[in-house]
Amino acid sequence: MNIKAVVGRNVRRYRELKGISQEELAFDADLHRTYVSGVERGVRNPTVLIVGKLANALGVAPCKLLEYKETS
Amino acid sequence: MNIKAVVGRNVRRYRELKGISQEELAFDADLHRTYVSGVERGVRNPTVLIVGKLANALGVAPCKLLEYKETS
Repeated sequence: MNIKAVVGRNVRRYRELKGISQEELAFDADLHRTYVSGVERGVRNPTVLIVGKLANALGVAPCKLLEYKETS
Repeated sequence: MNIKAVVGRNVRRYRELKGISQEELAFDADLHRTYVSGVERGVRNPTVLIVGKLANALGVAPCKLLEYKETS
């Protein structure tokens, strides 16, 4: 699995765990909703600053968004 | 500490642990040496694809490069 897809899956997972919509996450992270959607679909190639914004809005450590778990 | 500085410190730390130069890391990651230097200095804002290339060349999981340790 490529790293963009890993980040996308993690963002979606933590967003759903938090029970918020893409709109809400986008607002909290100061990003556009379509951008968040693109990240979740593994289409976007976000920079570490964006990963930091998303992690902050999700309440997780940035490294969690790059974590690849074989079993998940 | 901002996330670019965190990534830079981690890249330098793992590179030095591996005992390779910035040139060697740049070559292995298919990046320019000045770019690797900029990442290590926390000046560059690399994308997750670049973080993946650097992690691969360093032999560590990509999430390790975003890890922030208060004590280190």
